[in-house]
Amino acid sequence: MKLNFAKRMSHIKASEIREILKVTEQEDVISFAGGLPAPELFPIDEINQINQIVLKEMGTKALQYTTTEGYPPLREWIAQRMNERLGTTFDKDNILITHGSQQGLDLSGKVFLDEGDIVLCESPTYLAAISAFKAYGCRFIEIPTDEEGMVMNVLEDVLSRNSHIKLIYVIPTFQNPTGKTWSLERRKKLAELSSRYNVAVIEDNPYGELRFEGESLPSIKSFDTAGNILCTGSFSKIFCPGFRIGWIAGDKDIIRKYVLVKQGTDLQCNTIAQMTIAEYLKHYDIDKHIGKIVEVYKKRRDIAIECIRRYFPETIKFTHPEGGLFTWIELPEEISAREILEKSLEKKIAFVPGGSFFPTENKENTFRINYSNMPEDRIEKGLKILGEVIKEYISQSE
Amino acid sequence: MKLNFAKRMSHIKASEIREILKVTEQEDVISFAGGLPAPELFPIDEINQINQIVLKEMGTKALQYTTTEGYPPLREWIAQRMNERLGTTFDKDNILITHGSQQGLDLSGKVFLDEGDIVLCESPTYLAAISAFKAYGCRFIEIPTDEEGMVMNVLEDVLSRNSHIKLIYVIPTFQNPTGKTWSLERRKKLAELSSRYNVAVIEDNPYGELRFEGESLPSIKSFDTAGNILCTGSFSKIFCPGFRIGWIAGDKDIIRKYVLVKQGTDLQCNTIAQMTIAEYLKHYDIDKHIGKIVEVYKKRRDIAIECIRRYFPETIKFTHPEGGLFTWIELPEEISAREILEKSLEKKIAFVPGGSFFPTENKENTFRINYSNMPEDRIEKGLKILGEVIKEYISQSE
Repeated sequence: MKLNFAKRMSHIKASEIREILKVTEQEDVISFAGGLPAPELFPIDEINQINQIVLKEMGTKALQYTTTEGYPPLREWIAQRMNERLGTTFDKDNILITHGSQQGLDLSGKVFLDEGDIVLCESPTYLAAISAFKAYGCRFIEIPTDEEGMVMNVLEDVLSRNSHIKLIYVIPTFQNPTGKTWSLERRKKLAELSSRYNVAVIEDNPYGELRFEGESLPSIKSFDTAGNILCTGSFSKIFCPGFRIGWIAGDKDIIRKYVLVKQGTDLQCNTIAQMTIAEYLKHYDIDKHIGKIVEVYKKRRDIAIECIRRYFPETIKFTHPEGGLFTWIELPEEISAREILEKSLEKKIAFVPGGSFFPTENKENTFRINYSNMPEDRIEKGLKILGEVIKEYISQSE
Repeated sequence: MKLNFAKRMSHIKASEIREILKVTEQEDVISFAGGLPAPELFPIDEINQINQIVLKEMGTKALQYTTTEGYPPLREWIAQRMNERLGTTFDKDNILITHGSQQGLDLSGKVFLDEGDIVLCESPTYLAAISAFKAYGCRFIEIPTDEEGMVMNVLEDVLSRNSHIKLIYVIPTFQNPTGKTWSLERRKKLAELSSRYNVAVIEDNPYGELRFEGESLPSIKSFDTAGNILCTGSFSKIFCPGFRIGWIAGDKDIIRKYVLVKQGTDLQCNTIAQMTIAEYLKHYDIDKHIGKIVEVYKKRRDIAIECIRRYFPETIKFTHPEGGLFTWIELPEEISAREILEKSLEKKIAFVPGGSFFPTENKENTFRINYSNMPEDRIEKGLKILGEVIKEYISQSE
């Protein structure tokens, strides 16, 4: 006799990325999968030094339970940083520390979603956001995007014709998976629509600090007059992901609800990780560190784009991100990226097929390339082989 | 206009403990609230040393993403330990690392519970388990306990008369909040009933390693023939809670479902914390460390029990735990522990009133005493004052 599981379990499936990542643990695989930061840039020595300070000076506190909200000096830093960079007006009580920004998405599902509620998202969108929300039994409506972001008249049309829309989930800067960045106008417009239709927005921003060129834009939250917009952020891409420290920020009455929900979910985040980051930020210049990351990733983006131009068939389309970790490839419509992945894995090249980034549609002719995790020679080698695999696949299917 | 939140938000409330803990952050408060381990026993120097080894020898790995399942050497150690101590037959693939054992409860809710499902639990039970499961819209039926654990004929009666029972949640060793330990017979019987009625059991065991006297008992899982029983565990009470590392263990097909659910929830646990614990276990003798904790807590239990006998009115009842962190007080029926808390907080003494440990009933004449977090002189001082507060309250209400 089998146990009875929750209904949601019938539509929770393995994350394709996490499964591919297991393959890529073999050292000889060249991986464009995952969203892994470059490990050679982790400030290991600095972390080692700070860790020792934290343990020596505040050891009993660092290893003990703390409050659900998180370590106050870290929350203060985050509020300050967001105010400077994103045009918000937060203080520490607007910030809840989460277990990576992924937990911000899970908690958002718990705070907002009942079974059958609708989540609107960009098409395509971050695949683990789909899993996070789906666990609460929601449906998705995908809103198309163009070069300026989500297409606002479609969004408004959908908002006006559907009740039960609870959340609009967006990644307006260096989007995952497309690398696209929303224009200022679209940001303002989304804030306005969120207020008019009284729908919460989750503005996910894990990559915003990694801008290679062009001008920084204010957050959608900075145009929020109704208090409907929540922002998630993370230290994973500007510091290191192993600590699993991110945050969710928003108006205090809503953040208070998130705190209650987090209490029952896992009590609090890792204490020593929070204190180590806070001490690091006090002793070191994070902007200098981010500068190094940006320099390296920019080179890698450049070489990736150049190799795609050089080695991929002319019939494909791709995005040119101004920052972040990803570019997005569209193959001719009849081509399946999943089938190309099978071929490329035989040659030890991995990437993530695009199908999983669409919660309702199935655009199997797309895939995502991550360029942050490997040195330039391996990027070139890998994309050259991948280009050959694609060309061969296309020529055979003609 | 207010945003629309999920229905569950209307019955999620602040954890009384977490709120009281905020009061107890003032240094002059003597706190019997919380389940805080003694910070002076944290192996700070050892952790500092191990952290440096991990960062120097495996830094890039320790700060990077890892698999959702968790760090394999740590999972192997846990499986081995459970097999030795609890009579299980696990290997590493039976183990998922979780963000404290609290996350094991949250994930159990996600894996098993649909709205309206029933969870059976001991009366009283761990209050943050109530919050964790309640977030999935379940109802509770409390099963009474006596000195040997849950009363099995009541449990069987409830099982036979209710469909929609999805989980039985129990803490059979040094229970929170009562400190009670189930007998061998009750353990066997629960495994048998779980199989006969095809209901999953969550066997929560955060305190089992902290036995002061008496003989260790095998886990309920060790009598599980149907594969229905899941075990949670934690490093919080035998190592330190600040790392937030716990686990859930069970049959592989069920643990696989937990892994899928954890992927969407928060991707994975803190990498460096997992590696630090695994390295600590390789370089140091955890049994010696646990021995130290047991020695200290036993003394504290002894002094707490002695003080309760000496200073509390004779009309109260209390438990005599053989291990763990808590004893449980029953006042005469008409007395409200919440009202006593108000009085005792004026005298800077904190504890957790028992009402919150009952998901459906309201036994307000009970409270929980934690004795692990303070030195003996403060335990004596605090319980003496608390005894006076209780006596005064009782005499005034007569």
